[in-house]
Amino acid sequence: MGAVKTKRMPRAVREQQMLDAAVRTFGQRGYMAASMDEIAELAGVSKPLVYLYLNSKEDLFTTCIRREAHALVEAVRAGVHPELPADRQLWEGLRAFFAHTSRNPDGWSVLHLQARTHGEPFAAEVTAMREEIVSLVTRLIAVAAREAHRDPDLPDREVACLAEALVGAAESLAAWSNATPGTTARQAAATLMNFAWAGLGNLMEGRPWSAPEPSHEVSG
Amino acid sequence: MGAVKTKRMPRAVREQQMLDAAVRTFGQRGYMAASMDEIAELAGVSKPLVYLYLNSKEDLFTTCIRREAHALVEAVRAGVHPELPADRQLWEGLRAFFAHTSRNPDGWSVLHLQARTHGEPFAAEVTAMREEIVSLVTRLIAVAAREAHRDPDLPDREVACLAEALVGAAESLAAWSNATPGTTARQAAATLMNFAWAGLGNLMEGRPWSAPEPSHEVSG
Repeated sequence: MGAVKTKRMPRAVREQQMLDAAVRTFGQRGYMAASMDEIAELAGVSKPLVYLYLNSKEDLFTTCIRREAHALVEAVRAGVHPELPADRQLWEGLRAFFAHTSRNPDGWSVLHLQARTHGEPFAAEVTAMREEIVSLVTRLIAVAAREAHRDPDLPDREVACLAEALVGAAESLAAWSNATPGTTARQAAATLMNFAWAGLGNLMEGRPWSAPEPSHEVSG
Repeated sequence: MGAVKTKRMPRAVREQQMLDAAVRTFGQRGYMAASMDEIAELAGVSKPLVYLYLNSKEDLFTTCIRREAHALVEAVRAGVHPELPADRQLWEGLRAFFAHTSRNPDGWSVLHLQARTHGEPFAAEVTAMREEIVSLVTRLIAVAAREAHRDPDLPDREVACLAEALVGAAESLAAWSNATPGTTARQAAATLMNFAWAGLGNLMEGRPWSAPEPSHEVSG
């Protein structure tokens, strides 16, 4: 069995091709308008094979959300080096976040827009990912506060509150940046870093955040 | 006609009662789970009257979204006094925003969560409101930059980018604040003001934003 087929592909590889096609279609057309025909055609497989592998449009969409959520969280984690000072960690994390969302605009559209617009089960998948990112940022802010030797410590509630604000700002900016031609991931990351670290007050006076190391690339 | 009824109410008043009941039900139960029976009962009217006045569940939900969006934008506008310095304007705007969203948690849930989770026509209603708030904040940041006499001016793109970040942060924080017992509107506004104006760098060093006038109430 299978001896006649010349280009037999492992199931896992073929499944990833289907998911690539699905993320692109869901991201660009929207969940409702996306058709299984189009996804199968883009993946270069038959529609029955898509159903055989991924069950239904709902299940396919859920699998897309999980894959994209996992990839985004991993990209941010991989970008952050815990041995750096807190502001550098934040800068690296923001760069990784915006680099990933701008390289994968369809994946970001699936997570930020489509998954949240088509019912609670899909939205819940994104909520889980968001909580992971919020807790990552929360730890980072807590480390920053510790590094600054604040006494009394920044209360947990305020740290949590700041993390929510920062994550909300990043989400909003990623959507805007992908929708605004000519905006680069680096510009978005730099603007948010300045906003988050230096604050509007300093920005207005022309005092942006600057990295503590000479090799930084935040200017401009 | 109508002479027998003792408590005849103008249509507009009755309609607002239905909308109050609908916002509460949609906000607390979610759009899908909310029933027209429950809304009618809560409003103290018959279900056919709800359909007569507001047509369908979809139309009722759209009317709720529009009413809540209008109320929120008006509350923020009313809170901002254009004669004040930019940071004071931002502080007043944030206070008005969080005061409104915390006093109307069901309305905020309808706008921020329910309307964005149940299909594009509803989501589009919220997008229109969001654009109004973003343009309000954009003007405010542009004024701040002008006040600081920056030369060269902060580029339009960066102003737009900062406004998106700030609005995203506020949305995220309002949802978190309403879901976190014991958090007040004033705390949320003060934390975001500090984050946005002073930046994390200053907060870590114990240098929060402080209002330029002696009567300010941001401490703590």
